[in-house]
Amino acid sequence: MRDPPEPTLQDIFAARAHVYRYLTPTPLYRYPGLCDLVGTDIWVKHENHQPGGAFKVRGGLNYVAGLTGRERSAGLFTASTGNHGQSIAYAARAFDTKATIAVPEGSNPGKVAAMRGLGAEVVFHGQDFDTAREWISAEAHRVGGNYVEPTDASLICGVGTYALEILESLPQVETIVVPVGAGSGASGVSIVAKTINPKIEVIAAQSAQAPTMQMSWAAGKAVTAPMTTFAEGVATRVPFENTQRIMRRYLDDFVLVDDSDIRAAVRLLLEHTHNLAEGAGAVSLAAALKLRARLAGRKTVIVLSGGNLSLANLRSILAEERT
Amino acid sequence: MRDPPEPTLQDIFAARAHVYRYLTPTPLYRYPGLCDLVGTDIWVKHENHQPGGAFKVRGGLNYVAGLTGRERSAGLFTASTGNHGQSIAYAARAFDTKATIAVPEGSNPGKVAAMRGLGAEVVFHGQDFDTAREWISAEAHRVGGNYVEPTDASLICGVGTYALEILESLPQVETIVVPVGAGSGASGVSIVAKTINPKIEVIAAQSAQAPTMQMSWAAGKAVTAPMTTFAEGVATRVPFENTQRIMRRYLDDFVLVDDSDIRAAVRLLLEHTHNLAEGAGAVSLAAALKLRARLAGRKTVIVLSGGNLSLANLRSILAEERT
Repeated sequence: MRDPPEPTLQDIFAARAHVYRYLTPTPLYRYPGLCDLVGTDIWVKHENHQPGGAFKVRGGLNYVAGLTGRERSAGLFTASTGNHGQSIAYAARAFDTKATIAVPEGSNPGKVAAMRGLGAEVVFHGQDFDTAREWISAEAHRVGGNYVEPTDASLICGVGTYALEILESLPQVETIVVPVGAGSGASGVSIVAKTINPKIEVIAAQSAQAPTMQMSWAAGKAVTAPMTTFAEGVATRVPFENTQRIMRRYLDDFVLVDDSDIRAAVRLLLEHTHNLAEGAGAVSLAAALKLRARLAGRKTVIVLSGGNLSLANLRSILAEERT
Repeated sequence: MRDPPEPTLQDIFAARAHVYRYLTPTPLYRYPGLCDLVGTDIWVKHENHQPGGAFKVRGGLNYVAGLTGRERSAGLFTASTGNHGQSIAYAARAFDTKATIAVPEGSNPGKVAAMRGLGAEVVFHGQDFDTAREWISAEAHRVGGNYVEPTDASLICGVGTYALEILESLPQVETIVVPVGAGSGASGVSIVAKTINPKIEVIAAQSAQAPTMQMSWAAGKAVTAPMTTFAEGVATRVPFENTQRIMRRYLDDFVLVDDSDIRAAVRLLLEHTHNLAEGAGAVSLAAALKLRARLAGRKTVIVLSGGNLSLANLRSILAEERT
């Protein structure tokens, strides 16, 4: 039940009861300034308005709700660059259990502080997410704890609830652009959109400086690639097979955008929506701008997946250019 | 009905039907980082998450809902530094009528673009809000249009719905800190909090570089004062008598905070909540920091009234100091 072979629309409907016990739907707003820039009708799905500032919290709540009391009390162990960890920390607190989160050295300090503020134990380990993940998985096994795989099906189902909200608010949506880190968001969006209306185009996007998920999707097999992006939310080095499987079935396209375009998109979102986006959260606008010609005339939703940009990154992004 | 001598809690309950036809409640989040800074439990009421990025939209919808069809079709005329104008533009579009908004020269370009994006006609007039207000009021009279006084009772009732949301989400709230421009937000908060639980302390705050509302409140009569603040949302030069009356009856205190402290609060909100606040929206955090000793041990809500900071202002604020 907690880990079905592949999540379905029905599973995502089932997740709603758990998600909305704690959260409320996020807004979907149309911004004339972005419509002008992209040259079509653009709505922003504001997952940055969630507690913890990112869509992930939906998944954590659904995951922990699905555990037995015994599994919960064994404690939750996972690895994260920040938002997934905040989600698990939030859910652990909601269900009165303990979370231990491994993060790479040099992680976003605001995200680390937020996890600790939620009561989680945060352990720095390794140079990137995948190193931290291997270590904490072994650690959970060693102490008999509950290791949370970042693309567990119940996480996908939880985050998929935001895709249902998009289709409820804007049934006439024609294209959804969604950023990819581990792929749980893109998987949830794909399952919902394609099951309800296969004509809805779903386009995934990732940083060209962390292209492993895109390359694996395009090649039809796991490919690793150099990872140097500043956008930790999409900083995947080793692809996730279960989200790859879903994305191969459903995605219409998967594009790469350069970090410099992501940084420009952070500036544009601040200017035209007055929302702070982290790098991952701005990937969808960067992709929409790149796909301008293709999106013409299409009612397009871009997912602002998270807002947890550090002040240091914001300063350097604003200093780069006078937009 | 539309302009009772003084709005009551009952009127604010009545406004909910109109407000929630278009809007949903905004989140109230607790941020550990802000709790540490202020030294007490701090929740942020996220009115920056509303369409248009500010609390005002609640008022505009309630106002226009209360007009007769004939009044609506005469068109809406008002003056604004931005957020009130966006609110009236939003409501005009929702009710399919026309809005004409007078704004001071040099107004926040994002706010002007947003009003125009909503279909409003924007006319630049005069050096400050009050000059624009006098002019558009005469203009409305001349053409037989409907002049919207920025502190009309039905605007107060509309915006008061956010105060009800605060008390519903956090019934144990002990202090609410709210910024004052024209005073509709502080009036709505006062009426709700003091009617439901007179023990809730309501503290208003304004920029020391635009102190007219505070000085008038303290003096018990209209006082004008120099107005040089960068924070256009609290840039009042001529006090509003009807909101003064309500605030004199209900407010526990009314404090001034320096523009430099407001600017520091914009940085702190970005760092600890990842939300962009405009100057007015950061006034309540600046005030809470100033009142640190007094708030100790009190469950405190600060109202982040709006997020429409221009990119130019953001750049200069971030450049000022390494926090």
